[in-house]
Amino acid sequence: MDFLSIVGVILGFAVIIGGNFAEGGSIQSLMNGPAAMIVLGGTFAAAILQTPKKSLKRALTIFRWVFRPPYSPFAEGIKKLVNWAAAARKDGLLGLEQIAENEKDAFAKKGLQLLVDGSEPEVIRRILESDLILDEQRDFDAVKFYESMGGYAPTIGIIGAVMGLIHVMNNLADPALLGPGIAVAFVATIYGVALANLFFLPIANKLRMCVSERSQYRELFIEGIIAIADGENPRSIEMKLNGYLHAQ
Amino acid sequence: MDFLSIVGVILGFAVIIGGNFAEGGSIQSLMNGPAAMIVLGGTFAAAILQTPKKSLKRALTIFRWVFRPPYSPFAEGIKKLVNWAAAARKDGLLGLEQIAENEKDAFAKKGLQLLVDGSEPEVIRRILESDLILDEQRDFDAVKFYESMGGYAPTIGIIGAVMGLIHVMNNLADPALLGPGIAVAFVATIYGVALANLFFLPIANKLRMCVSERSQYRELFIEGIIAIADGENPRSIEMKLNGYLHAQ
Amino acid sequence: MDFLSIVGVILGFAVIIGGNFAEGGSIQSLMNGPAAMIVLGGTFAAAILQTPKKSLKRALTIFRWVFRPPYSPFAEGIKKLVNWAAAARKDGLLGLEQIAENEKDAFAKKGLQLLVDGSEPEVIRRILESDLILDEQRDFDAVKFYESMGGYAPTIGIIGAVMGLIHVMNNLADPALLGPGIAVAFVATIYGVALANLFFLPIANKLRMCVSERSQYRELFIEGIIAIADGENPRSIEMKLNGYLHAQ
Amino acid sequence: MDFLSIVGVILGFAVIIGGNFAEGGSIQSLMNGPAAMIVLGGTFAAAILQTPKKSLKRALTIFRWVFRPPYSPFAEGIKKLVNWAAAARKDGLLGLEQIAENEKDAFAKKGLQLLVDGSEPEVIRRILESDLILDEQRDFDAVKFYESMGGYAPTIGIIGAVMGLIHVMNNLADPALLGPGIAVAFVATIYGVALANLFFLPIANKLRMCVSERSQYRELFIEGIIAIADGENPRSIEMKLNGYLHAQ
Amino acid sequence: MDFLSIVGVILGFAVIIGGNFAEGGSIQSLMNGPAAMIVLGGTFAAAILQTPKKSLKRALTIFRWVFRPPYSPFAEGIKKLVNWAAAARKDGLLGLEQIAENEKDAFAKKGLQLLVDGSEPEVIRRILESDLILDEQRDFDAVKFYESMGGYAPTIGIIGAVMGLIHVMNNLADPALLGPGIAVAFVATIYGVALANLFFLPIANKLRMCVSERSQYRELFIEGIIAIADGENPRSIEMKLNGYLHAQ
Repeated sequence: MDFLSIVGVILGFAVIIGGNFAEGGSIQSLMNGPAAMIVLGGTFAAAILQTPKKSLKRALTIFRWVFRPPYSPFAEGIKKLVNWAAAARKDGLLGLEQIAENEKDAFAKKGLQLLVDGSEPEVIRRILESDLILDEQRDFDAVKFYESMGGYAPTIGIIGAVMGLIHVMNNLADPALLGPGIAVAFVATIYGVALANLFFLPIANKLRMCVSERSQYRELFIEGIIAIADGENPRSIEMKLNGYLHAQ
Repeated sequence: MDFLSIVGVILGFAVIIGGNFAEGGSIQSLMNGPAAMIVLGGTFAAAILQTPKKSLKRALTIFRWVFRPPYSPFAEGIKKLVNWAAAARKDGLLGLEQIAENEKDAFAKKGLQLLVDGSEPEVIRRILESDLILDEQRDFDAVKFYESMGGYAPTIGIIGAVMGLIHVMNNLADPALLGPGIAVAFVATIYGVALANLFFLPIANKLRMCVSERSQYRELFIEGIIAIADGENPRSIEMKLNGYLHAQ
Repeated sequence: MDFLSIVGVILGFAVIIGGNFAEGGSIQSLMNGPAAMIVLGGTFAAAILQTPKKSLKRALTIFRWVFRPPYSPFAEGIKKLVNWAAAARKDGLLGLEQIAENEKDAFAKKGLQLLVDGSEPEVIRRILESDLILDEQRDFDAVKFYESMGGYAPTIGIIGAVMGLIHVMNNLADPALLGPGIAVAFVATIYGVALANLFFLPIANKLRMCVSERSQYRELFIEGIIAIADGENPRSIEMKLNGYLHAQ
Repeated sequence: MDFLSIVGVILGFAVIIGGNFAEGGSIQSLMNGPAAMIVLGGTFAAAILQTPKKSLKRALTIFRWVFRPPYSPFAEGIKKLVNWAAAARKDGLLGLEQIAENEKDAFAKKGLQLLVDGSEPEVIRRILESDLILDEQRDFDAVKFYESMGGYAPTIGIIGAVMGLIHVMNNLADPALLGPGIAVAFVATIYGVALANLFFLPIANKLRMCVSERSQYRELFIEGIIAIADGENPRSIEMKLNGYLHAQ
Repeated sequence: MDFLSIVGVILGFAVIIGGNFAEGGSIQSLMNGPAAMIVLGGTFAAAILQTPKKSLKRALTIFRWVFRPPYSPFAEGIKKLVNWAAAARKDGLLGLEQIAENEKDAFAKKGLQLLVDGSEPEVIRRILESDLILDEQRDFDAVKFYESMGGYAPTIGIIGAVMGLIHVMNNLADPALLGPGIAVAFVATIYGVALANLFFLPIANKLRMCVSERSQYRELFIEGIIAIADGENPRSIEMKLNGYLHAQ
């Protein structure tokens, strides 16, 4: 569970509402149906116009990573790889067959199978790196869904605000009507800027880092599996890979 | 058919008009001939000044991809390549001659012909990658037509708005005339920002992803055809390529 | 002749003036000497402060490309290269000596001379690619002259507008004077934004694409000349290079 | 101790407060609890929503580098490496074992151990470069915490300002109340822009340069250690490495 | 002497002051002590907070390049290299020893010494390219000092303006006091935008191009010295290098 994310979302909206309250504003002054409809609807419309269906589906799937990031246990990963190297030393690469069957992580499993098949190290690297990049690209494309909403929300908010201002311009001579009219128009700006900066953009950035961490975890496995294919000894593999651990 | 695109375009303009209606604004208050002329005309003028003729033609050609993206069936593509590998195993590379003649996809056909001609794997890769990059560059240049309109529209909208404001400044002393004048001026801002954010920019981004997906589909064929040239067995080719499938 | 460029420039300024007219504004309201002096002078001043002399000269030289882009006939280029390959096959590389002397394009001529001198393919590639990159860099540096003016114009326009606003603030109590004063101040904004978006930025982008197209044309010659040096047969060279043609 | 940083932080806030004083403004006019709560709280909320826990911890750890940058003595480093080369010449690579044990810098120590183990130069380079990049990536991710706060602060400041403006719109008819209300609203803008431009963004940039300098210092060790592994003589190593010294 | 730079600086500030004068504004209306203190002080404070001491010193050192760019005589450089190649042909690489001692340019001298020492071409390239990149990085870091001031100045200008507006909001009911108050506040905006766009940003860009040109000049020497090490004949070296000359 990523408590920082939960605290971040709650704190963000709490200070807006609390700050408004502290300034003496009422909660009603921040509520406006048409503004919400324009900003949320317009932002969502722009985002689905630009997003291919498969990226949209993936974006919805990985949303949960914001609060429950994918598990990338570098220390355990290194221990696993060192154990595999020891097994390969003792029983040959074929000794990894049983391990490959029981491995749950699909990426590591593919690497083990390539080892068992006796593929050349260079071939293993090419296949695994290609898979890493393809998955990473798919997920970065999905992250763009949130990123694009973070980009569109403030500008759609400006559309809502300007439309509201157009509406009140008929009351320009009457400050008693003008003031509340402008106030309503400004709400769209707040919706757009707050949604983008307190929600969409931070979420996109967090997801981007989750994808990068998963890629780094997979790089660890690529390096380790190549080293096993090269017949390096477990101690040397551990030394080689502990840089990944230190960088956590 | 890309329903997300259709929904996105319709939803975007629907919430603007609906939101305006819900706020009590009339549809007339959003209609303004000169503003439309300035924003549409100016944006189009800037875009055709910057776009070479061949990119403009290509931009118009690929516009339909927004609603009907090019078909890139990764699963079928892998099946095809595995079948070709089997045919090459059975009858030699010359056995692909008939298949090459019947292949409809021009890119795959060129790859098959290079195989039949017995070109070196490295040569095949260089030629096909060069074709991939040249086509991709041509299409990214075409996408820039829409992207540039997304960039110019809001600033041209500002020109329209400021010109409108200049016009009403003569009525500064008379709020009864000033208000409607400012309202009209603001319409140009809405045109510019809405066109850019609900149409041009999302369209450019969708097209960019279509081009990237086509390139990825072609990379699949390059990898497969090189593997056939290297004489790899069909099962190993399938395993190598299934990363493309998984990443969809 | 690039008619799109001519239409783009004329259309851009026509819709601004026509739109102003349609909104009921006079042409005089868009004319303001001091604003023009500040925006044009300031933009030009910033651009020449940042541009080295040789880039400024080159920028003025290549300006004509906006309306008369450099001629890059890919189909003819491929035909030429195929003919050279045939000549080299028939009479050896020395048979290209006469052709080299008559070749008018300096870049192609240098390539032919390197062929006649019997240079290694790798050496030819390195020299020609180095020349391509050096020329491209020189021209991209020149394009930055226009690009930088597109960046400075709107901000200098804001300086002009704010200076105008400062000037009218003394009349804040008298709307009869305030209005026209603000109107004059706003003209500087229009000058800056319009110059940047209807002229400098599109021109910079068109020039950038001209430079890129020339580089692509030269890449075609590099590939072709290397293939001749490698002794490839004309038919194979044609097949290799037709990707350039298809991408036009 | 980095006196420039201390002077920069103090000077930045001093000129704001001093300038306000010189303009005749009171310090109270810049103090506003709700604005501070919105801007600080919202910026912090967005930043912790986007930052993974390990990057946040690292960000807090390296904050002290702003005032006490990590020590990277290039001249001493070169002297050390030349001494190691001399020792390796005299006693063989095993002669470095004692030196490795006493070396305090973990990165240099790992390099020495790889030398003592007799690893191939190419292997040493790959391991040390991988460690360098992993650490650099971890620290750049941490720097993004401050950078993101520099990006969010001004937009959250705008939220605070617009919320304040909404609040005062009810007093639009009464300038005696309107003025102070707008003044309070503007304070949020100042908080956001000042925090970003006088604190978060400069700090992020300084930290980024600290990380880059440490990487450059490590590159010096990689080059030196590879040269020792290649058996180069101390004089030649010194000449090779003095470019690092000259570039300080 | 770079006359364009001198003209650019003078012209920039002349059109601002002249334009203000032509609009009927007085020079006094552009003078404001507190605004200058906030904008200059705040911008400088942010820049020194972010800049390491060595980059600040280098930034001050290379400032003179704006008006007196480093001398990079490509034609002379090629002539020198051709002469060295001829000397090396006649007397062997040792014949360059005397030339190396008399060479004033430190970079060329190091290259000559490496030639005299009989280093491998690949080693010479690596050492010289490393030196080129290290120096380039150091100078790009120094250029960032001016670039960052160009980025901070307008935002600090906004702080000054908003602080001024807060101050005048107490006079909202009295246009006679309000107008001049707003005018004073706006001066800070002009200071920030003008400093950035007429001084800091163009200067940073000019310096960046100076650094790039010096790097290109050094690349010329690297290519030439490698060619001498490879024993190429002077005529062929001249032909190889004349692309550098053509690109000026």
